[in-house]
Amino acid sequence: MPASRVIVIGATGTIGGAVADALRRNGHDVVRAARSGPVRVDVADPAAIDALFAAVRDVDAVVCCAASGALTPLDTASDAAYTTGLDGKLLGQITLVRRALHHLRDGGSVTITSGRFDRPLPGSSFGALVNAGLDAFVRAAAPELPRGLRLNAVSPGWVRETLRHLGMDDGPGTPAADVARAYLTAVEGTVQGRVLTP
Amino acid sequence: MPASRVIVIGATGTIGGAVADALRRNGHDVVRAARSGPVRVDVADPAAIDALFAAVRDVDAVVCCAASGALTPLDTASDAAYTTGLDGKLLGQITLVRRALHHLRDGGSVTITSGRFDRPLPGSSFGALVNAGLDAFVRAAAPELPRGLRLNAVSPGWVRETLRHLGMDDGPGTPAADVARAYLTAVEGTVQGRVLTP
Repeated sequence: MPASRVIVIGATGTIGGAVADALRRNGHDVVRAARSGPVRVDVADPAAIDALFAAVRDVDAVVCCAASGALTPLDTASDAAYTTGLDGKLLGQITLVRRALHHLRDGGSVTITSGRFDRPLPGSSFGALVNAGLDAFVRAAAPELPRGLRLNAVSPGWVRETLRHLGMDDGPGTPAADVARAYLTAVEGTVQGRVLTP
Repeated sequence: MPASRVIVIGATGTIGGAVADALRRNGHDVVRAARSGPVRVDVADPAAIDALFAAVRDVDAVVCCAASGALTPLDTASDAAYTTGLDGKLLGQITLVRRALHHLRDGGSVTITSGRFDRPLPGSSFGALVNAGLDAFVRAAAPELPRGLRLNAVSPGWVRETLRHLGMDDGPGTPAADVARAYLTAVEGTVQGRVLTP
């Protein structure tokens, strides 16, 4: 594809940084957005998403890697703590897609981040809801997109660099650069309504 | 199983009424709860769920059929309208499960309602998120339940009586009595962490 202008949300994170670097290497004009730094956005805040699209124009693609969750046991006392990730990862990414409908150039794309637990894990019930919900949303919403827009999700498992950061030096996990390649497939390719699992 | 005390939430609806009737025929002590009537509850309101469990004691099983959604196109203007079903069907049923943990008798069960679209349908993207999210939640949360409690979901497609009500006289759809049987399997059987599709 020809070089395009791509906003990467969560560009200060492990995955987001790798995606922004890979897009840059491929010649794209990358706008790095995050909750801090020069281009700020918090996907949990619809007004902040509106402000981002007002400030950054002529955008071909948006990639959201900002969405994190947490392990929260089912009997966590607080409803708000149990539903960590609701406002940002789940509803924020949906708001991002709905706003992008009106701002992206024809033929543009949105790529969001779901996730997966490779085995049952205590505390994963709300995260499992969020990930499966986002995957189903992408499949069902893509056919409704106007103007040749595309929508896909990348569903990363554990990332090697993150596991190392947690002290699991020789643990499994997918290198961030390999995860980033799935996002590039979504941005540069023709896939539509797909969940990519690096 | 021996007769038990079962709360049916949404007992004034097509499915909920059929479930309550079927449980009653099998000898259970059925408490019919709904947004109106003698035993009131709105699953979208956590305080109302707390009040229900405070008022109705010695409960073996809770069945929630109260959860409805809507078809909302992806470009629906209002975020609140697009996310119809978020507070009740999605978050309300999760709150119900989390509260039931502390109130049901040992070996009791919770049965919630997800749903499915048998074919892609415009306006189904948020409903698809809710349904897939609930199914994934049930599978991931069941292993965390204490005291022999069980958690399952019933995922009904179109119900024949509902389609008739909409004017589709000889349309397809599953009779409510057949849908009700799936709920009885969840309440009376030993299934755990399953999504039952009548």
